[in-house]
Amino acid sequence: MPTAGVRRITLLTDFGTADGYVAAMKGVIAAILPAAIIDDASHEIAPGDIRSAAWALAGYWRLYPPDTIHVVVVDPGVGGPRRALVARIDDRFFVGPDNGVLTPVLVDASSATLVEIDPSLAGDVVSATFHGRDLFAPAAARLAGGVDPAVFGPTVFDPVMFDVPRAVRSDGGVEGVIMHVDRFGNLITNIPAHWVDGTLRVCVSSREVPVGRTYADVEPGQPIALAGSRGLLEIAVREGSAATTLAAAAGDRVVADAG
Amino acid sequence: MPTAGVRRITLLTDFGTADGYVAAMKGVIAAILPAAIIDDASHEIAPGDIRSAAWALAGYWRLYPPDTIHVVVVDPGVGGPRRALVARIDDRFFVGPDNGVLTPVLVDASSATLVEIDPSLAGDVVSATFHGRDLFAPAAARLAGGVDPAVFGPTVFDPVMFDVPRAVRSDGGVEGVIMHVDRFGNLITNIPAHWVDGTLRVCVSSREVPVGRTYADVEPGQPIALAGSRGLLEIAVREGSAATTLAAAAGDRVVADAG
Amino acid sequence: MPTAGVRRITLLTDFGTADGYVAAMKGVIAAILPAAIIDDASHEIAPGDIRSAAWALAGYWRLYPPDTIHVVVVDPGVGGPRRALVARIDDRFFVGPDNGVLTPVLVDASSATLVEIDPSLAGDVVSATFHGRDLFAPAAARLAGGVDPAVFGPTVFDPVMFDVPRAVRSDGGVEGVIMHVDRFGNLITNIPAHWVDGTLRVCVSSREVPVGRTYADVEPGQPIALAGSRGLLEIAVREGSAATTLAAAAGDRVVADAG
Repeated sequence: MPTAGVRRITLLTDFGTADGYVAAMKGVIAAILPAAIIDDASHEIAPGDIRSAAWALAGYWRLYPPDTIHVVVVDPGVGGPRRALVARIDDRFFVGPDNGVLTPVLVDASSATLVEIDPSLAGDVVSATFHGRDLFAPAAARLAGGVDPAVFGPTVFDPVMFDVPRAVRSDGGVEGVIMHVDRFGNLITNIPAHWVDGTLRVCVSSREVPVGRTYADVEPGQPIALAGSRGLLEIAVREGSAATTLAAAAGDRVVADAG
Repeated sequence: MPTAGVRRITLLTDFGTADGYVAAMKGVIAAILPAAIIDDASHEIAPGDIRSAAWALAGYWRLYPPDTIHVVVVDPGVGGPRRALVARIDDRFFVGPDNGVLTPVLVDASSATLVEIDPSLAGDVVSATFHGRDLFAPAAARLAGGVDPAVFGPTVFDPVMFDVPRAVRSDGGVEGVIMHVDRFGNLITNIPAHWVDGTLRVCVSSREVPVGRTYADVEPGQPIALAGSRGLLEIAVREGSAATTLAAAAGDRVVADAG
Repeated sequence: MPTAGVRRITLLTDFGTADGYVAAMKGVIAAILPAAIIDDASHEIAPGDIRSAAWALAGYWRLYPPDTIHVVVVDPGVGGPRRALVARIDDRFFVGPDNGVLTPVLVDASSATLVEIDPSLAGDVVSATFHGRDLFAPAAARLAGGVDPAVFGPTVFDPVMFDVPRAVRSDGGVEGVIMHVDRFGNLITNIPAHWVDGTLRVCVSSREVPVGRTYADVEPGQPIALAGSRGLLEIAVREGSAATTLAAAAGDRVVADAG
């Protein structure tokens, strides 16, 4: 375990902020570790949407420095039999319910050690509805203070993982799905961008979209397929929304072939 | 007055963020105290909704460590005769307009000292529309820097308090109201959860709801009454919204009786 | 160049938070400068709305202390020919695309030095869609760590500026436009508030609005024209929305005359 220097804590939840739940988590952290540095990742994940939380997390967890503590609480199963986890994955820490939200992190990682938080070691009474405040925030603060994950409880060898659809490549072309629609209406697929070049035509919603390098390669209002910021094929509309223009949504099929 | 170590500042407003008002407050704080640690509690309180701000604040103020400065600016009366306050309540500081938003804090506190901010001591010109920037942010920064509340002005003995409806208990049962509907559609009542057990039936919107311990005690889509995270009776729908399913809203009557 | 003490970084974007883009920027900053203090200004600027970002920025940039780094990424032209800028303006730093968003800052400044970020110096591969993560966050972190802006690339002498409509004053009165409608529905004009006094009547949307000092000068639901928090004439409705009540929007004409 590395020595503790500045260990930043990030928070990702579906709580919104207006009910005070996020502030309660921050208060618990600050009470344990007064100088804690807390970054809001987001609190605007749709309620209970574990896959969107996993998507967001995949985009930032490794950009933070080693020893960062990533707290992820999208927790529709709170109070039920689902386990509470602390994990150390590729030199970062993760804290949250065992509900599959770590799937893309684990798929991408070289090393992972997961531990179940034993609620009986949590000290004060733990509510049945708000483990973000009662289990996960204290665990994050203690990790940030240098505590070893092993103290929280027994090792977990079978974390919940959900299926991640994979794009397939054949002689004739490539087939994948839209994994995520972002705030701008960009359609982000599971197709590695380097699989597709200008010799292929990309089709989504029965519409052919040209392949380019940047939004500026087409006129405003026109669609383009390009390499997105995570190296995945993305369909965008310049200065517009591809989701609206192409009437497309997460789960829709995207193909690229020689036409 | 304790010595100043790390004094964290929390901000709760109805400003949203897009107009730059919140950033203006943060800038004023940073200019006075460059190393200030500022936590966003929320800026998504509905415009002018003092009671929702009071509800949110009640959920986190005491979880923060002693000497934290809680700034609460939901201020429809800005520029009018309402007073501007600095308070020290149970070892935390509070800053904001005197409009009742501290009611649940004061009801719950053991000790409270309140002071009116004398605008003539505020130094620069104070606008008639943005005391968050001109009075409250500077006061928060000065408190975080160790200034004594007494320097801000005269003591206030009659802070504005609003009525808080209380649940009533009789031989036959319990009666209360829905105090707050959260982002998940949970209906949080003013009934202490320990007043209700499985021998009572809970009714809201002419519908009987079973009493349980956790969301997982019912099937998805079904309602349940349980102890919420503040120790109050709460009606939830597993993986759904009780507000929608039961067509219930804040202010609605909730009863628990022997059936 | 002053020596680096605590250099706070502010972030203003149109990214929302749910997609993880903002957290990616924070992670990049933290990886370069682990103790960085990052303030969220806003991530709720409407997608691509450069003028609203400029408006928000104008309200806070100078309130922050010298050496603050203001990052502004509303960047519909990302990946195209638009330049990426680092600027030092009146002792603060600015980082973001060269798209006019600095217009009100530059109009108001005494001194400004702008530099184009040379992407070939940026080190790792720079994506065509997310310069917030790949160019602007690293630049902000390096500035916060004390790096001189000049190292980023060549000086820029012709930053993009957009036209800012100016109010005009004649013998008979004053004429301006609504520049911004805020979350509360306040209509903020480009008319200096000290141009208007009670001897003039203010008209917007064919309706005459009395001039006052504070919201409390009229009854709830009634409109009033007053000096807003930036010294500009503002039309508000007490405990209501002037935008709704007066059916007014940004760009609408506002006149003040002797009646």
